[in-house]
Amino acid sequence: MSGGDDPDRELLARVFLGRVLEPGDEVGGRWLRDLGAVEVARRLRDGGPQLVGVTDKRWAGLLARAQQAEPEKDLAAAQGGGMRFVAPGDGEWPGQLDDLGDARPLGLWVRGRPSLRMWALRSVAVVGARACTEYGAHMAATLGAGLAEHGWVVVSGGAYGVDGAAHRGALGAGGATVAVLACGVDRAYPRGHTELIARIAEQGLVIGELPPGDHPSPSRFIVRNRVIAALTRGTVVIEAAYRSGSLVTARAAQRLGRHTMGVPGPATSGLSAGVHELLRGEAELVTDAAEVVELVGGMGELAPDRRGPVLPRDLLAPGARRVLAALPGRGAVPPDEVARGAQTTQDDAIARLYELRSLGYVERHGDGWKLTRQAMISVRGGRGRC
Amino acid sequence: MSGGDDPDRELLARVFLGRVLEPGDEVGGRWLRDLGAVEVARRLRDGGPQLVGVTDKRWAGLLARAQQAEPEKDLAAAQGGGMRFVAPGDGEWPGQLDDLGDARPLGLWVRGRPSLRMWALRSVAVVGARACTEYGAHMAATLGAGLAEHGWVVVSGGAYGVDGAAHRGALGAGGATVAVLACGVDRAYPRGHTELIARIAEQGLVIGELPPGDHPSPSRFIVRNRVIAALTRGTVVIEAAYRSGSLVTARAAQRLGRHTMGVPGPATSGLSAGVHELLRGEAELVTDAAEVVELVGGMGELAPDRRGPVLPRDLLAPGARRVLAALPGRGAVPPDEVARGAQTTQDDAIARLYELRSLGYVERHGDGWKLTRQAMISVRGGRGRC
Repeated sequence: MSGGDDPDRELLARVFLGRVLEPGDEVGGRWLRDLGAVEVARRLRDGGPQLVGVTDKRWAGLLARAQQAEPEKDLAAAQGGGMRFVAPGDGEWPGQLDDLGDARPLGLWVRGRPSLRMWALRSVAVVGARACTEYGAHMAATLGAGLAEHGWVVVSGGAYGVDGAAHRGALGAGGATVAVLACGVDRAYPRGHTELIARIAEQGLVIGELPPGDHPSPSRFIVRNRVIAALTRGTVVIEAAYRSGSLVTARAAQRLGRHTMGVPGPATSGLSAGVHELLRGEAELVTDAAEVVELVGGMGELAPDRRGPVLPRDLLAPGARRVLAALPGRGAVPPDEVARGAQTTQDDAIARLYELRSLGYVERHGDGWKLTRQAMISVRGGRGRC
Repeated sequence: MSGGDDPDRELLARVFLGRVLEPGDEVGGRWLRDLGAVEVARRLRDGGPQLVGVTDKRWAGLLARAQQAEPEKDLAAAQGGGMRFVAPGDGEWPGQLDDLGDARPLGLWVRGRPSLRMWALRSVAVVGARACTEYGAHMAATLGAGLAEHGWVVVSGGAYGVDGAAHRGALGAGGATVAVLACGVDRAYPRGHTELIARIAEQGLVIGELPPGDHPSPSRFIVRNRVIAALTRGTVVIEAAYRSGSLVTARAAQRLGRHTMGVPGPATSGLSAGVHELLRGEAELVTDAAEVVELVGGMGELAPDRRGPVLPRDLLAPGARRVLAALPGRGAVPPDEVARGAQTTQDDAIARLYELRSLGYVERHGDGWKLTRQAMISVRGGRGRC
């Protein structure tokens, strides 16, 4: 494990480092920036030379962890368990995570069919209190469903309360959702969400920085929130007490130049106090999915309609091309019909439809999907306008 | 009724014009600016020369109304009924109403002891839906009481729902409140608020542009709102549906450079939709009286503490001097004790205390009142600091 630009070595080094460094370690991030993952991994495995910015005691601790790491075994086990490791430079890597600078994840473990990169392009985070009120749960479910109906991907943390309701809202509307966990993506945390997380892995994506089998911890929850903030175009907070973790996500989104939004609640509710504090600052008040889409869509929302699809059809993955070919020239069809036409499962068809949506080829109309005007024009070789 | 600067003639002309022109008539406002109230009144009474900007038909209508006007009788009846007419130039005129330009009221009819000018200096409008929810009524009452406890005057429109709850909250906290009516101030509108409006006239102020006996109308409610907005340092909206009259008040406040504030509610409540729309614009989100005071107080809130009282003691009205003298050198006393010390009624004492508060002499502490540090310093001739 030394030098060179071999992508497999780089990947293996990052998997190895994931067993040694904690997520969000900015000192480690500087090592990677200065020396590259392969060299940093080599020094940790070989026991030196010592890297800058650590005490001898901490260095000894890192070396001890390095001795335990078995990246090849991690990768093999992951493959067997339906997981993959996506690292910077990989085709599926969501480039917007690079905004995190030295706190950028080493890579992400991913469970689920869709392309993380494609889905993240049109995604919004919906986060909030675990111990939310019925009102909070209602708003999260409604917003999750509404965003899905607008063709947006709902990202959240898989927790009880607002997170779970947002995921369920998106799933219930036949939409796309991503759970970003603070533990290994092969674990279900919280335990009570075992079924929900399995469903998300089946119909959407379950992702996280921590290697398979790793446990969550309070600090890991906090650090995880920066990934939710960076991955998405904006973060909506629904119910959060003062000093809630959701406010950390919202403030991270703000620092990263993403949209920060809050759903108001009664002024008498302590669970809305944190949201109201946000709204007294820079955050935007939103009350439904249309208002969220109006903000996060911005120019991007209109761009595909103006410019036509960005990626030529020939460059689409074969699965996406088959789904695109299954859409009729006119009118919308439900995803099960698309799946039959493309000879695939409904979950796979939905995953592809959301990817094609990101590329400007298709759009969602209620429960159905149809070609965009630009996709139709490109079918007809750019002649005329309908 | 011709020419000259005689203040009695000017006053009489304005009372007369109040019977001829509708409140907020900007064409009439321009006549007053160009020719003066006395000359405009003379032309209307004498039947010409015709004023600019009116059709012949409208001119005839105005002349007919002018024939009915009996300003001397209005003033005499008002005096008998405990009302007074306060006009621009008068010592009690609140100068901030001049910000309304040509839509400035001709004058205001006033019922109640306190000085309108003094009270308006530290006042906040609290307005909202007539058919409010229990939540809206609760927030209005709490905010009314909280503002009163902070020594602020609560201004509202005397209507059912939010307005009434705000007035009652202030009264219940032994505080100061002003009702701005869209009818003659001798009338109680709505009828169900007859007792409330009588109590406000007894303990606070009931004011309005319309001459005694005049009825409200939908357009008069809308036009009245600009007075509420202009009189106060800021307007707080608690529950308002889309296109509610309270939003007219809020937008007028915004145009006049006053603070515009909204109390959020559930995103699912149609009665909060108008407030949320405001909050998505320029308005500030507030959830309690302290947050309102933080905004509207601004420099003004701190100014008296820095500069000491603006008005020398000798220039205070005798009643205010007596109330000031009744306050102990140290600690706070309840208003009934102040009233006994100043040999006056409790209502009068409260009226004076709020005036003295505007001037920086006294401050409210819970249920009691005490001298400000600056007032104590000025008692001791400016020696030392405590």
